[in-house]
Amino acid sequence: MSDITPIEWKIDHLRVLDQTLLPLQEVYRDLRSVQDVIEAIQSLAVRGAPALGAVGGYGVVIAVLQAQKENWSPDALQKSIRDLRDARPTAVNLAWAVERVSQVLEDGFNRILDEAKAIENEDREANRAISDNALAWLSANYDKPTYRILTHCNTGTLATTYWGTALGVIRALHDAGKVAEVLVDETRPLLQGSRLTAWELEKLGIPYRIQVDSAAAGAILRGMVDFAIVGADRIASNGDTANKVGTLSVALACKYASIPFFVAAPSSTFDLSISSGDNIEIEERNDYEVLNFWGRIIAPNESKAFNPAFDVTPHELITATFSNGHVRNEPVSG
Amino acid sequence: MSDITPIEWKIDHLRVLDQTLLPLQEVYRDLRSVQDVIEAIQSLAVRGAPALGAVGGYGVVIAVLQAQKENWSPDALQKSIRDLRDARPTAVNLAWAVERVSQVLEDGFNRILDEAKAIENEDREANRAISDNALAWLSANYDKPTYRILTHCNTGTLATTYWGTALGVIRALHDAGKVAEVLVDETRPLLQGSRLTAWELEKLGIPYRIQVDSAAAGAILRGMVDFAIVGADRIASNGDTANKVGTLSVALACKYASIPFFVAAPSSTFDLSISSGDNIEIEERNDYEVLNFWGRIIAPNESKAFNPAFDVTPHELITATFSNGHVRNEPVSG
Repeated sequence: MSDITPIEWKIDHLRVLDQTLLPLQEVYRDLRSVQDVIEAIQSLAVRGAPALGAVGGYGVVIAVLQAQKENWSPDALQKSIRDLRDARPTAVNLAWAVERVSQVLEDGFNRILDEAKAIENEDREANRAISDNALAWLSANYDKPTYRILTHCNTGTLATTYWGTALGVIRALHDAGKVAEVLVDETRPLLQGSRLTAWELEKLGIPYRIQVDSAAAGAILRGMVDFAIVGADRIASNGDTANKVGTLSVALACKYASIPFFVAAPSSTFDLSISSGDNIEIEERNDYEVLNFWGRIIAPNESKAFNPAFDVTPHELITATFSNGHVRNEPVSG
Repeated sequence: MSDITPIEWKIDHLRVLDQTLLPLQEVYRDLRSVQDVIEAIQSLAVRGAPALGAVGGYGVVIAVLQAQKENWSPDALQKSIRDLRDARPTAVNLAWAVERVSQVLEDGFNRILDEAKAIENEDREANRAISDNALAWLSANYDKPTYRILTHCNTGTLATTYWGTALGVIRALHDAGKVAEVLVDETRPLLQGSRLTAWELEKLGIPYRIQVDSAAAGAILRGMVDFAIVGADRIASNGDTANKVGTLSVALACKYASIPFFVAAPSSTFDLSISSGDNIEIEERNDYEVLNFWGRIIAPNESKAFNPAFDVTPHELITATFSNGHVRNEPVSG
């Protein structure tokens, strides 16, 4: 995906690839105000926990520029930064990055921008470290000539700043000639799997098939999958992992079928301030996403929906969590 | 749903409600040839295991009428009946009904039509018996003032000839004032949940919310559901149950959360000729259903899909199977 730059800082604004329009259109958006950034985050034009970290960091830079230009009071700037931090409640990377850059708010614009760039650069490095750790773990503990892999949601270049987390592991395995097939969950309601992951796999020449999310369990129990691997939006200190809704079903099926279920996430995804998944707030999004499909209603007019964006997978269902070692320097087996 | 007649024999043809157009349009189709019947079955204009039984029975009647009109040879009639029987491989009710009516093929038109009508009438009776058995079981074993119920796919009037199987149980509980809420899985790829079950619940005034299929596990583990209940397309002699893809995920989550998972199906759904779910053929449908949404492509042009219509839930995940007692006269606990 060397030709794709989903997030790019441009002197005084942030350019992002609008992921709501993929795979049909490749359109970039220029974000020049905090409101622009928040809207892009909430509409999922940018998404993916590691990418939200980078966007959060640059969002603070944009807030500072906007405060200067529009003569905001310090309180107005602080409120703006808080709104940015809280734009999506579940993914910890966003809040973590906003708070990290806010620490240097008094140190001048260059320092602020450097901190935001550092977050992006560290994520790039973390991505490769995650893949290296995962391949080493697989080689030592679960070596096969090739793997049939199941993944959920999108965790590739589009969800990060560069290489990908779970999809980065798949990409590294492909480069090593070890991917037989990837089963891609479509990932309702917004189809990050069929729209984004399939688009990345197609560009990378990695063999894949798309399935509805609810086909995953059957595929796993029928022996069509060697392991599943997903990303994470927030990992509690006991290892419980919040990720895109549907992850839990995949983990339950892997446990029942006795195949490995892996999480891949940078250290910025770990939230050691919470002891377990019970304390993770689950974002509920609007009914419209479930009841309509690209503008067309698919249910009775009167219907209401339950639309949680995430679920929590208990740590006991996770075989190993691959990270870049800042927090957990060894994959956790459990 | 007394105002809805999804299947109706009309002197010399079968009138069916085209379920592919619901909930936006209520259009009836008149089936006058075996080809019409097979096309209606394969396009899912008619679907639902018990309804497919009734349609299969009347389909033989239509074949006999067509053979007379078009001067078919006995071989041509037999081939036509075999094609009808094999129109969908997983739901046993279709093959069972076609074979049952074929037994009286030599006994004259009236006898043939009576046999088809008997299948429809028996299904109506079975529907109510299933509900009665389920309510008795719940009252004896899992009594609560009200229930929060999760269901998958459509098992109501539209899937049967009259009252419904799993949705019939929900309807009977609602009539007893015992339904707090129904969480309806949308049931990708063809949305039998959000299109059909929601439509029936809306007409019946039963409170419900629609969720994407992959939200079911999270809702169950978060304590939002008292039990799940689904229909069945084929039940092996050990109790393993094939049903709409996604059923297995619901059952796995119920097991993990220690809440009951129920199956409701008429005796015609039991296939005692097979010992376990391993022997149930799983119909794979075309890629188009997964990769397109009402005519709009939702994945890269080059993508392929894995599209099983069903999965198999192992009997050990099923708390009880409610039937009308022809085969298993007590709900099976296990």
